[in-house]
Amino acid sequence: MEKRHVILDCDPGQDDAVAILLALASEEEINLLGITTVGGNVPLYWTESNARRICELANRPDMKVFAGASGPLMRKLVTAEWIHGKTGIDGANLPDPTMPLQEAHGVDFIVETCMAAGEGEITLCPIGPMTNIALAMMKEPQIIPKIREIVCMGGAVREMGNVTPAAEFNIYVDPHAAKVVLDAGVPFTMMPLDVTHKALVTPDRLQRFKDLNSPVGDVCGGMLDYFNRFDMTRYGFDGGPLHDPCVIAYLIDPDIFQGRRVFMDIETRSELTLGQTVADWWNIQEREPNAYVCDSLDAEAFFDLLTTRLARLK
Amino acid sequence: MEKRHVILDCDPGQDDAVAILLALASEEEINLLGITTVGGNVPLYWTESNARRICELANRPDMKVFAGASGPLMRKLVTAEWIHGKTGIDGANLPDPTMPLQEAHGVDFIVETCMAAGEGEITLCPIGPMTNIALAMMKEPQIIPKIREIVCMGGAVREMGNVTPAAEFNIYVDPHAAKVVLDAGVPFTMMPLDVTHKALVTPDRLQRFKDLNSPVGDVCGGMLDYFNRFDMTRYGFDGGPLHDPCVIAYLIDPDIFQGRRVFMDIETRSELTLGQTVADWWNIQEREPNAYVCDSLDAEAFFDLLTTRLARLK
Amino acid sequence: MEKRHVILDCDPGQDDAVAILLALASEEEINLLGITTVGGNVPLYWTESNARRICELANRPDMKVFAGASGPLMRKLVTAEWIHGKTGIDGANLPDPTMPLQEAHGVDFIVETCMAAGEGEITLCPIGPMTNIALAMMKEPQIIPKIREIVCMGGAVREMGNVTPAAEFNIYVDPHAAKVVLDAGVPFTMMPLDVTHKALVTPDRLQRFKDLNSPVGDVCGGMLDYFNRFDMTRYGFDGGPLHDPCVIAYLIDPDIFQGRRVFMDIETRSELTLGQTVADWWNIQEREPNAYVCDSLDAEAFFDLLTTRLARLK
Amino acid sequence: MEKRHVILDCDPGQDDAVAILLALASEEEINLLGITTVGGNVPLYWTESNARRICELANRPDMKVFAGASGPLMRKLVTAEWIHGKTGIDGANLPDPTMPLQEAHGVDFIVETCMAAGEGEITLCPIGPMTNIALAMMKEPQIIPKIREIVCMGGAVREMGNVTPAAEFNIYVDPHAAKVVLDAGVPFTMMPLDVTHKALVTPDRLQRFKDLNSPVGDVCGGMLDYFNRFDMTRYGFDGGPLHDPCVIAYLIDPDIFQGRRVFMDIETRSELTLGQTVADWWNIQEREPNAYVCDSLDAEAFFDLLTTRLARLK
Repeated sequence: MEKRHVILDCDPGQDDAVAILLALASEEEINLLGITTVGGNVPLYWTESNARRICELANRPDMKVFAGASGPLMRKLVTAEWIHGKTGIDGANLPDPTMPLQEAHGVDFIVETCMAAGEGEITLCPIGPMTNIALAMMKEPQIIPKIREIVCMGGAVREMGNVTPAAEFNIYVDPHAAKVVLDAGVPFTMMPLDVTHKALVTPDRLQRFKDLNSPVGDVCGGMLDYFNRFDMTRYGFDGGPLHDPCVIAYLIDPDIFQGRRVFMDIETRSELTLGQTVADWWNIQEREPNAYVCDSLDAEAFFDLLTTRLARLK
Repeated sequence: MEKRHVILDCDPGQDDAVAILLALASEEEINLLGITTVGGNVPLYWTESNARRICELANRPDMKVFAGASGPLMRKLVTAEWIHGKTGIDGANLPDPTMPLQEAHGVDFIVETCMAAGEGEITLCPIGPMTNIALAMMKEPQIIPKIREIVCMGGAVREMGNVTPAAEFNIYVDPHAAKVVLDAGVPFTMMPLDVTHKALVTPDRLQRFKDLNSPVGDVCGGMLDYFNRFDMTRYGFDGGPLHDPCVIAYLIDPDIFQGRRVFMDIETRSELTLGQTVADWWNIQEREPNAYVCDSLDAEAFFDLLTTRLARLK
Repeated sequence: MEKRHVILDCDPGQDDAVAILLALASEEEINLLGITTVGGNVPLYWTESNARRICELANRPDMKVFAGASGPLMRKLVTAEWIHGKTGIDGANLPDPTMPLQEAHGVDFIVETCMAAGEGEITLCPIGPMTNIALAMMKEPQIIPKIREIVCMGGAVREMGNVTPAAEFNIYVDPHAAKVVLDAGVPFTMMPLDVTHKALVTPDRLQRFKDLNSPVGDVCGGMLDYFNRFDMTRYGFDGGPLHDPCVIAYLIDPDIFQGRRVFMDIETRSELTLGQTVADWWNIQEREPNAYVCDSLDAEAFFDLLTTRLARLK
Repeated sequence: MEKRHVILDCDPGQDDAVAILLALASEEEINLLGITTVGGNVPLYWTESNARRICELANRPDMKVFAGASGPLMRKLVTAEWIHGKTGIDGANLPDPTMPLQEAHGVDFIVETCMAAGEGEITLCPIGPMTNIALAMMKEPQIIPKIREIVCMGGAVREMGNVTPAAEFNIYVDPHAAKVVLDAGVPFTMMPLDVTHKALVTPDRLQRFKDLNSPVGDVCGGMLDYFNRFDMTRYGFDGGPLHDPCVIAYLIDPDIFQGRRVFMDIETRSELTLGQTVADWWNIQEREPNAYVCDSLDAEAFFDLLTTRLARLK
């Protein structure tokens, strides 16, 4: 498998944090060019500093971390402290970062990285609201052919939404951005709640993080302990869904996931269904597919990969 | 269980036909006041005459059958001959009916029946587009307190739509009518695709209809053989879903069905999600429930009930 | 000019009351088949009894007055007591009516009258929300070819709305009804605010009503005195606009009005522009016209006609 | 009057060209910091090179001209060659520019200029689609307090639209951008069609440009001759409306214009009314005004100002 050149666009977020760690631990598959951050799970102040906290935890103070958009294109920012806690990574107990935030804007980093790349070279991985990616495409449409693939966490297809009955959080926060990105015509792969609700951090799996006996393992254990609570209560799951690392795991081993090529559109007009990812799973309307949507995974293989890789980070 | 006073509002349709037969065969639980018909699966000309064909098949030429609205409130009629065949009940091979169509308009029959009834006396069972019920409520809002319950077939909650990715056929054909009916504030029970896609006419079950060794059994066998094809092909099911009789079965034995009280709304504004039944299954928005939505059934009990009851019709 | 066979559908309302009087006083041009009433300016209780009050004032207790829909198709009724006063015809000081309300529903009267008529025979004149007309068309689409013309008061084309910035009251109250009626494909003539805001009851004109020295003149004087206040204050006009009688005057003498054949559509989806009558005045989109929209009138001729005709009612 | 520090954001366009010339000729009131261009009347390739052509015509090759967004945020670019001709400034007959296009992106120039400025220091004048301004605000919301005022050409309030019945071209092309800019809460002044349709280039006024006896006069004469045709034909005007220079004239002498402080919103959801600028001219809804909307001007004073100022450019 050819190594991917990746920009990870995130809003940590406990599950974003685990996604960052998995990416940093997987250098044979992933050339992480930089981490851009966005207002989402918590405000930008926290997401950008959390990204740096996690890089420092992984002994990677050299990683470039950028602040991008503080809020969505057309709407007020909705955050989710009720799930993530005030800091976004409650349970981690990490000190303030000392590595610097890059001076450039995250959107400009995306634009410049893409413009300097060859055709189809860059993989963009938005695991929060897609505001930064959309802004980059709007500002400089010439980046579009430089993108190899968008692999994102977001949406809910055969599953109900988690922030409204119709919509998943990342897409709901900035539905206009998601529509811009989807409509750009780049290969688009999505990890919706359909798949992440099958990637549950059960007590056994949580223990495997704790058993890593490393700062990384301890932090993951603490964060996921905290993060599990909300969804276990709401859904009666025996573990919380570990959304964002699915995107990175897909880059490393796509065979962990099953999905379907479908035509998808994103609702931006109706208040009732705002941010819904409407995918024609049964090809009722016989349109050309524009997205690869995953709906299940081999959860054991996923958690094996995660804990094996995170064990590398000492 | 108290006997229900029922108006069945339908657009036969093979599965509507079975629903009519089940109602006619269940006099101890169901006092069928009349059958109103609407343009839906096929145009009104067919639905009203099919309702009469089925009544005659069941030796009930005395049943009152009314023609109601020929098309939806605000949109052009969409029909579904690709599933039901040109007549709506292809596979039945029934002669033209000789019993008369009632002269009164179906909407007026609903209005007058309700106005003559006591509070909470009438159960309305729309198993096609809800145009007639909505028109009755719009024309005479005083019927609303006379209604005991609306029990309908329609919608898709945790299941995808079957006419668009977001919408089930009955609601899609007349979303405005469905919204008017739901918003009237009457007790509202819904059998969406979530439940009907678990009521599959497998080969075994189809054979049980045929084994009735009666004209009713033969007609059901022929109709369902025809009706099964489409959904078995699309979904890879081992039988087609028998949608409409679920409503009547619920009147007879509600314990066959499981469901949840939820808040629901119906999309009427967005083209993309038009006719979607958006139900807050996880009570994310903490609104007062306005609907009882079924999502599963005891399929064996359902088909036992069906074949046992239809055996009565000689 | 051939005599018109007219159903006047109204929600009196001071200006509706004057329209009724003008119709009753114009038997050579107008065969008034009946008056149907609707919830609009004030609730149905008032509009139907006011219609009867006005018929009695004109010594026409034989006129058939029907109650129709109490509120709009899809929305809650919005009334306008701030303009019309609590009774709808504040300033009239008329006693309770003694003539009976017809037993039939207004919608049924419209349906039955049309069904009994020849092709293109009936002129429908909705001067309130178009709920009744829409319900009649929905219930029985076969009435559509029986209609010669819809002549309505409603909308605002080059003029701003009067209940929201985008919408005029009659259309705003029931935009879905207006869209159903417009889309029925019947010849459609509209008197929007563009024309009625040029039909101002200035002090001189008000005095001409009072100078009739008849009960009708006194009542018109009292009502219009009251009705004038609101719009004179809001717009700084030197008289209030006399909306609804424009429709009747058009039936009597269309040359009083100037207008244009245009393509029009009605906004039913957006909250912001709900009920707007969007007419392509400059034919930008080159679509086939579906409406004749008036935008000005000879105000002197209009008030001459009004006062001359009302003088007949002793 | 305090001198304004201005960024002119445009899509020349004949009338944009005249606006640029008027700004360049008015150094006592206007410190023109730079010209940003956007895809609008014609594609970005033409708008940016036309801006340079016009600067060179005015002997200002030192002026900074930037290319910004090539198309709108959420929609495909709609252009208007049928009015402006293929080049956007047909009738000008200007050679290709030799002055350089600035390397920075127009959006970055807006962001950096504002971030380097004091509070309330910068006046932004979008006279095309507001894509660049919106992108700047989205990318860096901290520019918002640095903006003294947005003075834009766009919209239609009491006037019909010119690209659809409801919408004026600049807003229609990018309604989402206009909504973002309006909702930013910056002092917002708008020159809609209401005022520009009263700024007609009649034959007399056209002659005054030609009589300048200068290259600038000749070019303006040629351009406006061409530009006049379309609207004179459509509307039967005796001259074409000179839209964009109204913005610059307002900066120089606001007393030329009359207007009203109103609450305004922009339609982004409905296809029918997309891009409509819905302003509550009569304060029906009693909301706090968020815009100053002009609806008329002293046309003679406006053309006097224009020709006097353009005479300075030799």
